[in-house]
Amino acid sequence: MIKGEIILTGDRPSGPLHLGHYVGSLANRVSLQEHNKQFVMIADVQALTDNYEHPEKVRNNVLEVAYDYLAVGIDPKKTTIFIQSQLPELFELTIYYLNLVTVNRLQRNPTVKTEIKQKGFEDSVPAGFLMYPVSQAADITAFKATVVPVGEDQLPVIEQTNEIVKSFNRIYSCHVLKEAKALVPQIARLPGIDGQAKMSKSLGNAIFLSDSSDDIVQKVMKMYTDPLHVRASDPGRIEGNTVFMYLDVFDSNKEKVAELKEHYQRGGLGDVTVKKYLIEVLTQFLEPIRNRRREIAQNPQEVKNMLCEGTGQAQKVAHQTLEEVRTAMSLNYMLRE
Amino acid sequence: MIKGEIILTGDRPSGPLHLGHYVGSLANRVSLQEHNKQFVMIADVQALTDNYEHPEKVRNNVLEVAYDYLAVGIDPKKTTIFIQSQLPELFELTIYYLNLVTVNRLQRNPTVKTEIKQKGFEDSVPAGFLMYPVSQAADITAFKATVVPVGEDQLPVIEQTNEIVKSFNRIYSCHVLKEAKALVPQIARLPGIDGQAKMSKSLGNAIFLSDSSDDIVQKVMKMYTDPLHVRASDPGRIEGNTVFMYLDVFDSNKEKVAELKEHYQRGGLGDVTVKKYLIEVLTQFLEPIRNRRREIAQNPQEVKNMLCEGTGQAQKVAHQTLEEVRTAMSLNYMLRE
Repeated sequence: MIKGEIILTGDRPSGPLHLGHYVGSLANRVSLQEHNKQFVMIADVQALTDNYEHPEKVRNNVLEVAYDYLAVGIDPKKTTIFIQSQLPELFELTIYYLNLVTVNRLQRNPTVKTEIKQKGFEDSVPAGFLMYPVSQAADITAFKATVVPVGEDQLPVIEQTNEIVKSFNRIYSCHVLKEAKALVPQIARLPGIDGQAKMSKSLGNAIFLSDSSDDIVQKVMKMYTDPLHVRASDPGRIEGNTVFMYLDVFDSNKEKVAELKEHYQRGGLGDVTVKKYLIEVLTQFLEPIRNRRREIAQNPQEVKNMLCEGTGQAQKVAHQTLEEVRTAMSLNYMLRE
Repeated sequence: MIKGEIILTGDRPSGPLHLGHYVGSLANRVSLQEHNKQFVMIADVQALTDNYEHPEKVRNNVLEVAYDYLAVGIDPKKTTIFIQSQLPELFELTIYYLNLVTVNRLQRNPTVKTEIKQKGFEDSVPAGFLMYPVSQAADITAFKATVVPVGEDQLPVIEQTNEIVKSFNRIYSCHVLKEAKALVPQIARLPGIDGQAKMSKSLGNAIFLSDSSDDIVQKVMKMYTDPLHVRASDPGRIEGNTVFMYLDVFDSNKEKVAELKEHYQRGGLGDVTVKKYLIEVLTQFLEPIRNRRREIAQNPQEVKNMLCEGTGQAQKVAHQTLEEVRTAMSLNYMLRE
């Protein structure tokens, strides 16, 4: 169990959060906030690096993501929730760090390389997109985060951050910046309802935390199972069967799941029956979240106040770090307050 | 004559200013300040893009450059002098503009390409260096500058800025940013004392505004003339002869210069005689500047106060632009003041 660490984590507000987010990060945050200093950033500036033509999409999702956070139990009394664009310190740190990284190094970053391919940028990579790992280094170091929860595919970002930390401390002969450790979640990534590796809004295979009962029924009913399991009486495969993967994650009644698996493999258990059971399980899980979310969303001003307070707290920390950075870089002219 | 324009210009504080700066820009600024709104930026952040390992050099030259400005007659009552790093707005604008420029476009910038070669970066171009034209676009647009005095070699920077302006206004359906016109000085670049194309501190061929009488004597005596003009009685060439190029620029007695040229070409006029005359001319030009500079430098706090005030004024303007930019980008959450 992780204790006494400084944690930085967050999400790009480019859509509402889904079960994949819950399993991969949100659940973790709810437990990490108990014994650590946790900062959760709504990364609107980062979201703009590949949504700069749709800023209203980013803006509209800032509050949606905040509702999701509160609904799953991230507690603003324990966790500092803030909006990235509201901290000018992060922009300034990014610009200073850009001097410490070569263009070639950024172009070799495996995460960015993969994403450039996925997004089809080809020869038109926006400079802001290539540079987002440097902006992440600014976010992480501004809070002197010691632990950063990331997916396996984001490990190069932590590596890049720690390279910047080492360069900065060496060049400016100081110990201002701190290296961070990656925390990779133990639960494997939740697949989308189509059985694809990753649940994602853009792939249209996600179950959102805000989905209605009807949405859940429809999505589970479409879920990928064993394509060769045509009649209920046939034996079915549970490997790669999305319905059983979800049951493994969301059903606390492990005996019941084991029993269903055994029956399914033996034959005589139809997909519809298992899916109906998964609908029950997911409803039981999502209903209280959805209800809390609805209640929270009735008071947007209260949520804005919470974000404002969190942003203020985060800014104090980032500002202190920036002052130390400026002093190390001999940029503390004492001209501005 | 240029009137009623908004002008942005400035210098990287990586060394004291020299006669090349005077001829290429300072003299211009002294006259431009009369009928325009002029902002002069001490570009310490830009200086760091190729001096990030020597921040103290940049820091130490901020005040030196300010002394130079005041000594040549840039008047803080007419011109707003400010320090780049003290305006967080400029960092933020830079980050937003990075989304509007592709990496390839930056790599094709002729100015940056040439400088990358000159500085011998080869495969290790710092990302901050590649991006400095975007940071310049932030500087220019923050003040909605309509005119930017630049050397011929910096024209691509204005082009890049105007591309960003057009993209921004198009993507965010607004008219917030303004295109700027380049103002290229009519006087050709002053060569260094070695006759090289460019006077520059790093080439060791500069006469500084702060040089002592002895410095001037020594430097003029070493000056490149006509290498084939060995004896005073020989005819000499004035084309490419640095001494005569300086006389053309700094001696207001044009008749006298014409007479000397004629005599030199005919033969019978020794280099030492012409150089002694140039020493007189330069001394007459530089002595009052040097004396004013010495006086000004006796009160560094007064100069700091001036910079602080100028920076405050500049910040108000940049802040207003940033607010408009944030509004256009839907980032005006009204969370921070």
